[in-house]
Amino acid sequence: MPQTKILLDENEIPSHWYNVVADMPSPPAPPLGPDGKPVGPDALAAIFPEALIEQEVSTERWIPIPEQVREIYRLWRPAPLYRAHRLEEALGTPARIYYKYEGVSPAGSHKPNTAVAQAYYNRQAGIKRLTTETGAGQWGSSLALAGQLFGLEVRVYMVRVSYEQKPFRRSMMHTWGAEVLASPSERTEAGRRILAGDPDSPGSLGIAISEAVQEAASRDDTNYALGSVLNHVLLHQTIIGQEAKRQFEKIGEYPDAIFAPCGGGSNFGGVAFPFLADKAAGREIRLVAVEPTSCPTLTKGHYAYDFGDAIGMTPLLLMYTLGHDFVPPGIHAGGLRYHGDSALVSQLHHEGLVEAVAVPQLATFEAGVRFARSEGILPAPESNHAICAVIEEALRCKESGESRVLFFNLSGHGHFDMAAYDSFFAGELEDFDYPEEAIEESLARLPKVG
Amino acid sequence: MPQTKILLDENEIPSHWYNVVADMPSPPAPPLGPDGKPVGPDALAAIFPEALIEQEVSTERWIPIPEQVREIYRLWRPAPLYRAHRLEEALGTPARIYYKYEGVSPAGSHKPNTAVAQAYYNRQAGIKRLTTETGAGQWGSSLALAGQLFGLEVRVYMVRVSYEQKPFRRSMMHTWGAEVLASPSERTEAGRRILAGDPDSPGSLGIAISEAVQEAASRDDTNYALGSVLNHVLLHQTIIGQEAKRQFEKIGEYPDAIFAPCGGGSNFGGVAFPFLADKAAGREIRLVAVEPTSCPTLTKGHYAYDFGDAIGMTPLLLMYTLGHDFVPPGIHAGGLRYHGDSALVSQLHHEGLVEAVAVPQLATFEAGVRFARSEGILPAPESNHAICAVIEEALRCKESGESRVLFFNLSGHGHFDMAAYDSFFAGELEDFDYPEEAIEESLARLPKVG
Repeated sequence: MPQTKILLDENEIPSHWYNVVADMPSPPAPPLGPDGKPVGPDALAAIFPEALIEQEVSTERWIPIPEQVREIYRLWRPAPLYRAHRLEEALGTPARIYYKYEGVSPAGSHKPNTAVAQAYYNRQAGIKRLTTETGAGQWGSSLALAGQLFGLEVRVYMVRVSYEQKPFRRSMMHTWGAEVLASPSERTEAGRRILAGDPDSPGSLGIAISEAVQEAASRDDTNYALGSVLNHVLLHQTIIGQEAKRQFEKIGEYPDAIFAPCGGGSNFGGVAFPFLADKAAGREIRLVAVEPTSCPTLTKGHYAYDFGDAIGMTPLLLMYTLGHDFVPPGIHAGGLRYHGDSALVSQLHHEGLVEAVAVPQLATFEAGVRFARSEGILPAPESNHAICAVIEEALRCKESGESRVLFFNLSGHGHFDMAAYDSFFAGELEDFDYPEEAIEESLARLPKVG
Repeated sequence: MPQTKILLDENEIPSHWYNVVADMPSPPAPPLGPDGKPVGPDALAAIFPEALIEQEVSTERWIPIPEQVREIYRLWRPAPLYRAHRLEEALGTPARIYYKYEGVSPAGSHKPNTAVAQAYYNRQAGIKRLTTETGAGQWGSSLALAGQLFGLEVRVYMVRVSYEQKPFRRSMMHTWGAEVLASPSERTEAGRRILAGDPDSPGSLGIAISEAVQEAASRDDTNYALGSVLNHVLLHQTIIGQEAKRQFEKIGEYPDAIFAPCGGGSNFGGVAFPFLADKAAGREIRLVAVEPTSCPTLTKGHYAYDFGDAIGMTPLLLMYTLGHDFVPPGIHAGGLRYHGDSALVSQLHHEGLVEAVAVPQLATFEAGVRFARSEGILPAPESNHAICAVIEEALRCKESGESRVLFFNLSGHGHFDMAAYDSFFAGELEDFDYPEEAIEESLARLPKVG
């Protein structure tokens, strides 16, 4: 009988995170301050612990994973690598399709990989509370879990429209002991300012970030945690790709192409970077970031310095961006609605080491349902993007008769996204037009640098 | 670092199901017809395939698992055995606590173990469609998944009140291609009769069973599938306990006591029966079925012949029952709201091989939250019953200083039950009084036999 799952024992959880900076053709472009000058690590000290700031700027290839973090990882890691026998059969493709399933974490996605690490370092630094933002709730619930496991209080600013529409992610955060506030809130100056202008504001990720950062910056016992984009976040996620490499080794396979959804970039970076080390050493492998056509940062954005948040509180990062105040259409893959991209992923894309494709919403749900009906697992809308790109590639292999090894990150389950599937089955799901005008307008507002 | 998960390779998926009938002190009491005479296997042929009827009455100790069923099991099995280090620490108990996590299946509970087997045998018998009932939706979604994997159409009669209150379980069934009807429906005579009397009927499990059975009995291409109670269902679930035994062997442990939620009995039987074989051979081990105080079949019911459904369509089974038309209070653990119990579990309880305890709703949610906050996983309300009993036992061990090995079945996750957690946190969850009068009344309506 063909093997379906390639498992690792928990003693095989990697001992180090992999830092792609060590293998990049050129050093990462520095973040800049409003004056156009590079921002030093100490500018971040008000909201991040020293250990994470060090990781943010480290050039070391290997960074040890603390024993206490690995202990928590054991609750669900190593995550299984699946061979998608039934999907291959359904497609009639000669391609061999594999996926890493990160939905086995208690929060249901890859996000706890970094949430646990961030909670640990903050706890070590004597921090008592963490603030963060969340849209659909994947990240907020992961940090709630991590905070609970390390005895930290967590306050989550949840975009108001999601707070009202996705009550069950909120319940999940409550169960893990976190406080959840609808954002904009009355608790912060940023929130009050927005509410003064628009008492019925539905909120946005940008506003929620501002609230969480503002609170963290104003309290000594409180730090801020971010779920993607930053270098240290991508670093923590490399545990995914590292495990996958060992799993492929075990069965004597190696992927020809890797696909992962790409919003802020931690999902893609986490699975792709450990393989990029091989690519940098000359191995042939395609690394494909999959983004929504309605928020096409890598495929249609500018490579330019821009703010990480919507209202311009963060340092400037050199990245692919649609403009920091671009508001993407309301697709269900909330985790992919980010105006920019990780600076590391952006630079690697700019240098041609990483590819990107964009896929429309309807096709992603068609792909997700096809997947669920052959493999069982119900994927998250974000994960459906990778599935969509893999199915297209597998069908190309069918045409050409090539038996390629395709690998994707099934970053999470869709148990809290069933309303999106309902819309799909009801025929109510839209393919948004490419928001060309809105992007042009927001790109015109890119900050001038230097 | 202490081991957290004890895994098995997929080649270690058991090759046979274990039939407890072979080790019972006395043969199972036969089901009886309305005339008080034993019902032959052929009476079931209109709604079940031959292979399942054979399993229903088999006395063989080992029944081989078909290769195609084991292939599907590989999608999530073997399920991990966890050592609850963090829960032990939180309780300060010297007890060693283990749990088998069945929430790793795509449907999120142990139910697919039998759904897949039932779909397989029906497919083998040339059946094209399956009907079933579902309350909260755990069973319906498991059969939807299994039907999809074997190319069978599935129609689920879902209790109307759940159909309206739990739309996301319904979405899950749609995603796997099943048709879901609110019951009572206009499709069956049983449904139409109920609607004629009460057009706004909220439905009940009893009515939904009648509809599903009626449709299956009336169509040659259609059979019926049940998610618990029957011998063949418990048989399929013994894969849980068998895997657990191997996992305990691997680490040189053996449980002193096993706890599982008990509604119809397949969860409890599945985990406990393989250990009962050892108990029958003289080994000391406690097997504890945990039920809700509001539906206390084993702890307060009569051991008597009664109908399996609410309106008296099934043969009579000798079991602990509260009366076939007893309607339990609306606790959130929908899977435990059954008036009776598996005949096998009932007989073993009657013969003193199996214990039972009842726990109140509020305590089960307190236990579930405690569990989630130390172990991460968010448990289903049904599973919270086992957790509650285990925590009580672990605290007794703390008092007595005994280092017992406690083992329970974490039968499913609570991702589709977050509204129940919301009620708990809002202080709106009730402990229902023991419904003594209602039980007395329904017991007075037990059918006269012989």
